[in-house]
Amino acid sequence: MSKKHKKRIVKAGLPPETLVYTGDRAQTPPVVHTIAYNPDFCNTFNDYRPEKAAPDRNLWVDVLNISDVDFIKTVGEQFNIHPLALEDVVNTQQRAKMDEYDNGLFIVLPHIRYDERWVELQFEQVSMFVGQDVLVTFQEDPDDTLQIVRQRLGEASNRMRKKGTDYLAYSVMDSIIDNYFVALDKIETSVFEVENSIYAASNQHFKAKIFSLKHTLSQFKNKVQPLREAVARMHRTDCPILRQEDAVYLRDIADHVAQVLDHIDNFKDQLINIESLYQSEISNRMNNVMKLLTVISTIFIPLSFVAGVYGMNFENMPELKWHYGYFFVLGIMFITMIGMLIYFRVKKMI
Amino acid sequence: MSKKHKKRIVKAGLPPETLVYTGDRAQTPPVVHTIAYNPDFCNTFNDYRPEKAAPDRNLWVDVLNISDVDFIKTVGEQFNIHPLALEDVVNTQQRAKMDEYDNGLFIVLPHIRYDERWVELQFEQVSMFVGQDVLVTFQEDPDDTLQIVRQRLGEASNRMRKKGTDYLAYSVMDSIIDNYFVALDKIETSVFEVENSIYAASNQHFKAKIFSLKHTLSQFKNKVQPLREAVARMHRTDCPILRQEDAVYLRDIADHVAQVLDHIDNFKDQLINIESLYQSEISNRMNNVMKLLTVISTIFIPLSFVAGVYGMNFENMPELKWHYGYFFVLGIMFITMIGMLIYFRVKKMI
Amino acid sequence: MSKKHKKRIVKAGLPPETLVYTGDRAQTPPVVHTIAYNPDFCNTFNDYRPEKAAPDRNLWVDVLNISDVDFIKTVGEQFNIHPLALEDVVNTQQRAKMDEYDNGLFIVLPHIRYDERWVELQFEQVSMFVGQDVLVTFQEDPDDTLQIVRQRLGEASNRMRKKGTDYLAYSVMDSIIDNYFVALDKIETSVFEVENSIYAASNQHFKAKIFSLKHTLSQFKNKVQPLREAVARMHRTDCPILRQEDAVYLRDIADHVAQVLDHIDNFKDQLINIESLYQSEISNRMNNVMKLLTVISTIFIPLSFVAGVYGMNFENMPELKWHYGYFFVLGIMFITMIGMLIYFRVKKMI
Amino acid sequence: MSKKHKKRIVKAGLPPETLVYTGDRAQTPPVVHTIAYNPDFCNTFNDYRPEKAAPDRNLWVDVLNISDVDFIKTVGEQFNIHPLALEDVVNTQQRAKMDEYDNGLFIVLPHIRYDERWVELQFEQVSMFVGQDVLVTFQEDPDDTLQIVRQRLGEASNRMRKKGTDYLAYSVMDSIIDNYFVALDKIETSVFEVENSIYAASNQHFKAKIFSLKHTLSQFKNKVQPLREAVARMHRTDCPILRQEDAVYLRDIADHVAQVLDHIDNFKDQLINIESLYQSEISNRMNNVMKLLTVISTIFIPLSFVAGVYGMNFENMPELKWHYGYFFVLGIMFITMIGMLIYFRVKKMI
Amino acid sequence: MSKKHKKRIVKAGLPPETLVYTGDRAQTPPVVHTIAYNPDFCNTFNDYRPEKAAPDRNLWVDVLNISDVDFIKTVGEQFNIHPLALEDVVNTQQRAKMDEYDNGLFIVLPHIRYDERWVELQFEQVSMFVGQDVLVTFQEDPDDTLQIVRQRLGEASNRMRKKGTDYLAYSVMDSIIDNYFVALDKIETSVFEVENSIYAASNQHFKAKIFSLKHTLSQFKNKVQPLREAVARMHRTDCPILRQEDAVYLRDIADHVAQVLDHIDNFKDQLINIESLYQSEISNRMNNVMKLLTVISTIFIPLSFVAGVYGMNFENMPELKWHYGYFFVLGIMFITMIGMLIYFRVKKMI
Repeated sequence: MSKKHKKRIVKAGLPPETLVYTGDRAQTPPVVHTIAYNPDFCNTFNDYRPEKAAPDRNLWVDVLNISDVDFIKTVGEQFNIHPLALEDVVNTQQRAKMDEYDNGLFIVLPHIRYDERWVELQFEQVSMFVGQDVLVTFQEDPDDTLQIVRQRLGEASNRMRKKGTDYLAYSVMDSIIDNYFVALDKIETSVFEVENSIYAASNQHFKAKIFSLKHTLSQFKNKVQPLREAVARMHRTDCPILRQEDAVYLRDIADHVAQVLDHIDNFKDQLINIESLYQSEISNRMNNVMKLLTVISTIFIPLSFVAGVYGMNFENMPELKWHYGYFFVLGIMFITMIGMLIYFRVKKMI
Repeated sequence: MSKKHKKRIVKAGLPPETLVYTGDRAQTPPVVHTIAYNPDFCNTFNDYRPEKAAPDRNLWVDVLNISDVDFIKTVGEQFNIHPLALEDVVNTQQRAKMDEYDNGLFIVLPHIRYDERWVELQFEQVSMFVGQDVLVTFQEDPDDTLQIVRQRLGEASNRMRKKGTDYLAYSVMDSIIDNYFVALDKIETSVFEVENSIYAASNQHFKAKIFSLKHTLSQFKNKVQPLREAVARMHRTDCPILRQEDAVYLRDIADHVAQVLDHIDNFKDQLINIESLYQSEISNRMNNVMKLLTVISTIFIPLSFVAGVYGMNFENMPELKWHYGYFFVLGIMFITMIGMLIYFRVKKMI
Repeated sequence: MSKKHKKRIVKAGLPPETLVYTGDRAQTPPVVHTIAYNPDFCNTFNDYRPEKAAPDRNLWVDVLNISDVDFIKTVGEQFNIHPLALEDVVNTQQRAKMDEYDNGLFIVLPHIRYDERWVELQFEQVSMFVGQDVLVTFQEDPDDTLQIVRQRLGEASNRMRKKGTDYLAYSVMDSIIDNYFVALDKIETSVFEVENSIYAASNQHFKAKIFSLKHTLSQFKNKVQPLREAVARMHRTDCPILRQEDAVYLRDIADHVAQVLDHIDNFKDQLINIESLYQSEISNRMNNVMKLLTVISTIFIPLSFVAGVYGMNFENMPELKWHYGYFFVLGIMFITMIGMLIYFRVKKMI
Repeated sequence: MSKKHKKRIVKAGLPPETLVYTGDRAQTPPVVHTIAYNPDFCNTFNDYRPEKAAPDRNLWVDVLNISDVDFIKTVGEQFNIHPLALEDVVNTQQRAKMDEYDNGLFIVLPHIRYDERWVELQFEQVSMFVGQDVLVTFQEDPDDTLQIVRQRLGEASNRMRKKGTDYLAYSVMDSIIDNYFVALDKIETSVFEVENSIYAASNQHFKAKIFSLKHTLSQFKNKVQPLREAVARMHRTDCPILRQEDAVYLRDIADHVAQVLDHIDNFKDQLINIESLYQSEISNRMNNVMKLLTVISTIFIPLSFVAGVYGMNFENMPELKWHYGYFFVLGIMFITMIGMLIYFRVKKMI
Repeated sequence: MSKKHKKRIVKAGLPPETLVYTGDRAQTPPVVHTIAYNPDFCNTFNDYRPEKAAPDRNLWVDVLNISDVDFIKTVGEQFNIHPLALEDVVNTQQRAKMDEYDNGLFIVLPHIRYDERWVELQFEQVSMFVGQDVLVTFQEDPDDTLQIVRQRLGEASNRMRKKGTDYLAYSVMDSIIDNYFVALDKIETSVFEVENSIYAASNQHFKAKIFSLKHTLSQFKNKVQPLREAVARMHRTDCPILRQEDAVYLRDIADHVAQVLDHIDNFKDQLINIESLYQSEISNRMNNVMKLLTVISTIFIPLSFVAGVYGMNFENMPELKWHYGYFFVLGIMFITMIGMLIYFRVKKMI
């Protein structure tokens, strides 16, 4: 996150609507897919062809890699995207959001992966401009999150072909949110692993694991919570691009987002419970250590004292001369020891 | 839950409205009950007879076991249920919800049992489609939760016979929610058991029990809270299927749900209190152990020192030659010990 | 509460609107008071006389003991009370609530006493049906909570006589809520007692007391919070029975309920503070115990070691033969001890 | 607070609108100031002169000491104040509130002082009835909180003279709220003092001080929070007495109340931080004590054991006869001690 | 903050709308920049020239240093700023806010710097009056926060020149909020430093650092939260000065404020996690110390007892005369020690 901040600071001195890419991906040329489709046909081009827009069809321009701000600006001007929206496309610190402009909606949502190598969430910002006959999507990463949606659009029988750009946008959102469940599942596995290691012996890194998982869940929630607000705002908007007949699909997305948040809260609760259980296990072990110390000390310190007494060198110590003095003292010591062990057993200390 | 996730992930790659059963019940053929009724008659069939629908009667189709997605699809098409609703029927990860479609309402709510064998809640998803003259219910489990409602409907005098499908749906919901109280009662018993075992001797698993109960209550709440929202939404809707005259019955359901949530919160509070009381009991025991160690050490370590001094082998130690030196030292030691015991008693340490 | 649950479970198998008394009071015959009044007269009868209802007067029927469900049903039918409301009358698990029916309002609120014998709150459910010219009240307990209101109504000059059944209902509610303050005062006394016993010696049951008080306050709050909602709903309703001119009296009730909740929150805060103070007192005492152990051990263990050294039996130990060796070693020991005591004093350990 | 409760309980048996003074101030005769003013003149009388009311002027009646309920009743009837409002005037348990009546607004707010003698907040209830041409204020205490406002009103150039009773009421409220900042400043001083004493030596009463301050802040917040609601309700009301043109002054009051609440929350946060810092300081000291015990014991207990071994009286112990046996053992002991000290130093234990 | 309070108290006795500078900056003469601009020209003057206002242009008067209240009053009267707004300009305790007056909007927001010298946030109050053709800004500090905005306005191509005073106000706000990110970045660095020092050796000041950072974040949040409300209120207002076409820029500001709050909450969460991790590290170290003590004591105290027994001086102790008694006892001791070490190893205590 630090690097992004750095860029954000660079940006601090600049006027609004200045395009600066604040992400940390390498600066490579963008890859663009252009798809023109209507119920009858679907043409896919692996480059940027804005000229394919026409009144009888919908156009989907899918831009991968947003580090080339000049290209982003070109696309924006072509499709009449507001400069502030374009600024958000390249400023990858955005919260998920839905902004309504005169000629369309601008939507930002995070694509979330759980990277096992670094035990952390990886976020990619996906932005969409939904116009009347056009959808422009911007993916931060070059690896192609939306390929599956493009494939499906290619299938002749697919419902997407018959519906407007709003339905296409919903499909993109749904495909991204479906991946949240993949991340959640991996996180669940980690939570279960941690839970199972409570009573295991070497818990050196137990707390650190809990720490990472809690952090991960906080990040996840912070990213998804604004998405819920954004989807709710899409529900309320009366923008004509979002057709009334497709509202059920938006409701479906809202349900999925709510499920994701439910799962996150569940996992958080579980982690808190696990932590408290672990804490109590640790204190239990400590208590056992202290009990051992107490039992040993309480038994042997008085006995040592008795031995010490008869180790004194006074000339006149009558017991020392008794023939069975030694065995008598040994017996007393033994009985005391047994008595104490019984006492501790009764008191449940051993 | 893990298995469901797995299936959910399988689903991640599929387009919306694809029916995939994500539950973990065995794949057995569905059992269907069809009931056609009006105030005058009530015919019950133990198989699927959609053709019994007619303008002068209400039809209730009750499907048990939803693993056969093709059959679900057939039923859905027959009664014109929206594909997204059907998807929710077989995707058993749903939160409780109420979705309004053009031709009816779709309601999902969980049936909750408390299983003593596994000390955990078991959830079964019950879905309902409430149309103008038709109610279709889908039960995840083959064991028949709604049998009692079907029985009651068979009674000629029953109010259900005279009312619409909305009232029937309310009766189904009420019957499911009534079972929440059964689960709550068992949980209450467990909470009381835990409370009574605070001061008992072998509390090895005390914390783990608290952990399970808290987890159970969290799950319970997570399932019932969305139900409250769903019922509230049913209140607000102006769908004509929900008749104004039956609103009082819906209000009754809302009251029951609120009661359930109240009880859950009470139990949670109680568990937190019990935990804190237990914590204090544990630390109390530990303190007693430490006090014992301190008392014994504080008394005998100085006395042993004195004995050690007179165990030294210096040639010139005048006290050693005193005739009553030994008894004098013993006396000093005894007085010191008595004095310390009095001190500890005054300080409430023993 | 357990018993109620048991009954609730019995009820689980029954259809809605079945009257089952779920309380735990003994089944004795109901006591009924009927009062017919208008500004000019006020006739009180100590039995059930529904026939006294007339257009020129208001009728108050006050039923004590609700275990006779058949009688409750009779009353309900006489005054046209909705079956669901009647069900709530005898189901004593109700949250406080206000339900609006076509012919009147149905109000449930708890009567709360603090019972010193059992150190717990005792709840009695009071239900009211407020019709146009009729008020029907149902008291769970045979001991007469509303006697004072009936007395006041008997006084010719009383404002109640000149007003409608809504004002009478407000008076009943006000009289019940006034008793909350009595309970609060007793609880306050308990909180102060607990606060004053923090530093007292034998705190064996301190935590248990805190536990009970917190539980009591939680219960209190759980009972009164729904009452606040109910009163707020009464404010918002446009039911003609609640006259606009009497709204100030309802506002007064709302203020009292808010005060009660304020007090409860204050007491809870205070208990939390007391608990934390007690915790710190306990840990303070423990620290003193540990300091004592440390001081004694740190002083005497090294000295004992020295004594042990000169207790060794080596043949060649020159110091043993020094004439003043013993006194020299004793001196060293004494100086060491004094030095350590000074060190501990400087370090504030003793 | 206890005394008030007692009175409140006395009140429990009485009908609403009965005037009972529930405060604990001495019963002395009220002091009244009557001010008749308009832009042209301002006449101040130090007694009660309701006859000075006239259409061409505003009248302010300022009553100090409210224990004489008969006089309060007389004033109430003279100015047509609703009996419920009068009841609130003398019932000094009120939360801050704003009630709208037909002929004016009734406002209650607390005057708050921080009394250093008793280290606690002292509350005085100030009530106001704001009518069309009349303001009646009731101060619980005989010491004159509103003198400064009366003085200012006397100044010919003062804006108050030209405005209505609403502006006068705002001035009274503003003057009272200004005193909250005085109390806050004293509390801040206490918080800083506590913060600075964390590392100081004798922290005997540290926790108790934190306890008192937290309690004070809770009380403060509990008193001011309802005031915020009351002011917000004044904003929303469309009562003609509150002129639109003076709304900015009410907004100013709302800002001040919000500032007070902000400060209180800040102080609370700081106290929580201080407490946690102190806790960690205490546990740090304890850890140092334990480390000392461990270091001393770990060094000397094994050495004592060695000494003990050579103090044994076996006849055949070859080492005892070695000429340098004693010095050899002493050397071993010394090296062991040095080694352990180095070990502890490396482990950062000393 | 204390000094401000002091001034606030001085102010307590004064009537509203009295201008008193409550900040703690030195009293130096104000520096004023006047800029008259329209799309065609932009004239900058480094002194106060109110006469440059004209119908065909916008005027921006930027006042640095607000300690000269007489000058502030002059400016206020010149531009018809409401006295309450002026009072807020010089009373530097303001929460961020937006007040609507008849002739314009009055906005207060804090300029926030993170000062490394004092490890604390430094706040400067910036106030703005946005009129139809005029913007008046008041900066508390003489160092020029808004210089960059003035510079940009000077650039002929800048969009600001073509837009109204609302856009200029947005630019000022945006420039100030951009600096929040600079402060956040420095705080993030500190949080990371703290996180990395958890396991480092000398953590003497660890807790104090956490304390300062939490305090800083609380302050930050307390300052920015009211700003969010203020911006939301700007959204809702229908004041004609805020043109509908510029609403997107206000939305952009709202997004940035939300991002700042998100970051603050993230950092707070992280600090809480770090604290808990540190706590567990500390208790881990303590446990290791206790284990060491227990292991050493448990091994050597019984052995010392055995040595003590054979150090007793009884005349008849047969073992003492055995030829290999000493070596036998030594062997027993050695085996016991080895056995205990194995036991502890098995129990994971060493």
